[in-house]
Amino acid sequence: MPELETAVGIDIGGTNTIFGFADREGNILSEGQFKTSQYGKIEDFVAALYEKIMAAGHKISGRIEIKGFGIGAPAANIHKGTIEYASGLPWKGIVPLADIFHMHTSLPVIVTNDANAAAVGEMIYGGAKGMKNFVVITLGTGLGSGFVVDGKLMLGHDGFAGEIGHTAIRPGPSNRECGCGRKGCLETYVSATGLKRTLLKIMADSIEPSELRKFSFDQLDAKMIHDAAKNGDTLAKRAFLHTGRMLGFKLADVVAHTNPEAIFLFGGLALAGDLIFEPAREYMEENLLSIYKGKVKLLESQLSTQNAAVLGACSLIWSKDKI
Amino acid sequence: MPELETAVGIDIGGTNTIFGFADREGNILSEGQFKTSQYGKIEDFVAALYEKIMAAGHKISGRIEIKGFGIGAPAANIHKGTIEYASGLPWKGIVPLADIFHMHTSLPVIVTNDANAAAVGEMIYGGAKGMKNFVVITLGTGLGSGFVVDGKLMLGHDGFAGEIGHTAIRPGPSNRECGCGRKGCLETYVSATGLKRTLLKIMADSIEPSELRKFSFDQLDAKMIHDAAKNGDTLAKRAFLHTGRMLGFKLADVVAHTNPEAIFLFGGLALAGDLIFEPAREYMEENLLSIYKGKVKLLESQLSTQNAAVLGACSLIWSKDKI
Repeated sequence: MPELETAVGIDIGGTNTIFGFADREGNILSEGQFKTSQYGKIEDFVAALYEKIMAAGHKISGRIEIKGFGIGAPAANIHKGTIEYASGLPWKGIVPLADIFHMHTSLPVIVTNDANAAAVGEMIYGGAKGMKNFVVITLGTGLGSGFVVDGKLMLGHDGFAGEIGHTAIRPGPSNRECGCGRKGCLETYVSATGLKRTLLKIMADSIEPSELRKFSFDQLDAKMIHDAAKNGDTLAKRAFLHTGRMLGFKLADVVAHTNPEAIFLFGGLALAGDLIFEPAREYMEENLLSIYKGKVKLLESQLSTQNAAVLGACSLIWSKDKI
Repeated sequence: MPELETAVGIDIGGTNTIFGFADREGNILSEGQFKTSQYGKIEDFVAALYEKIMAAGHKISGRIEIKGFGIGAPAANIHKGTIEYASGLPWKGIVPLADIFHMHTSLPVIVTNDANAAAVGEMIYGGAKGMKNFVVITLGTGLGSGFVVDGKLMLGHDGFAGEIGHTAIRPGPSNRECGCGRKGCLETYVSATGLKRTLLKIMADSIEPSELRKFSFDQLDAKMIHDAAKNGDTLAKRAFLHTGRMLGFKLADVVAHTNPEAIFLFGGLALAGDLIFEPAREYMEENLLSIYKGKVKLLESQLSTQNAAVLGACSLIWSKDKI
């Protein structure tokens, strides 16, 4: 029996690192995950990750051939294979991730930010098949973005294109602090964390009751706010409305930069459906220049949610010509 | 003697339309200009323009072969050869410019926004030779932008990429009205008109004397404010400082979208030199994410100012493969 060609996809997030083996059709053959923060040294992290990947690989029945490792991570530089000054990760400064990975393997290692990986994944496996110009916005702990321009991932001169999570939505010294050291960045409003912050602000300003008032900031997560909103909790609904509007407002700016055919929302917050899509769509349309009005689709990512980040990272290996 | 290959470049601005013949090396062989606003009907405008171009062509000594017509115009759609809902032009709605042009000639006609033309011009004739990722910002009556991504002009799905003049710098219902119908757009602050508006605001808020207080809004232009600032006029200097800062602040956002190697400023306001570049550079750097700091060059366009717009439009004909 011939060996099955597989790619290993790895998604390094602020909270969890997940990985998996996928074939060219996007079938996940094996997967695993662990807490990112338990490894303070990047060398220890990579050694443990590599070991876990190999263990997961051995569970696959039949012979496989690994074609390479695709890695999605915050603030990743695809040209150098580095993670540089990622505010949400335990490792500071410039981290030579690909080089450290190559201490364990001589196979190709492609490192790019998680949103770029999601964009390539959407193009290869998801809803952007056949599209030449689109944007993927990842809504996780933070907010990432990946741009495909004329059929190729836009990388920029230093490999850092697509950091719109750190564009100014509400500039000014009194505004929300961002992990990047600046103030008023988009992701301080539009992300799982941003949603929590907005909810707390609304709780502070309002006297209305809410089932969420009994939870601390640390206890709260986007899923709880989503569930509360579905159950009719006024404050939770208002937090989503505000988050969606901020997103929609900013998407009009994104369109004015790159004029995409579609914008895909990806990640936990995107699962809130109409709660986030309706206000986002309304405010985007309201703020678009007339030449763009009614033309830009705002869509949910079509990558299967459970494995989306891993598939995105795998797709980097299958589409080297588009990077 | 063989015929000299030439392109005709046309720049349609809100105030003036200028045109010229150039060879492949960027030498201008003949040129002309007239007021855009004197033709209320687009068919009359094109007929008069075509006649003037032919008359200018006859003045060139030696035989020439025209290879095509490159046209820079606001809100132009390169895919369709149209101008669509340009707020600063006399013709409303969707104007099929290339089609009307083809009533006079069967040669190629390429229509794109003036900033895209400037970007291609910068790549072919100017300071962006050899660069693969850069942005050109045109500072005229309004503010335009052209993006080159991976060596090609970024057009977007509908041919309308690069309208950052209409991204929000100061959103909100009480903010400056823009010709596009929205409020708080970048070009209401950063453009020749924006500079005038800022000066008037500063005059209104301050009691300091200024030689510019004796001129009406209609009388004022960017050159007068520039001259006054050079002569030490405090209000004029302050107007430039504010304009430059607003620009720099927004450029940090532009970098977060596309991570260019350089940003070129083009057009009248760019000639103000340090008056605009210093505050723009300072505020851009201050607002850049750490991964971009110190890496993005803010440069003056290297197209010869007098013919820059015409050269940019001509370059569309010489670089069809990059569009």
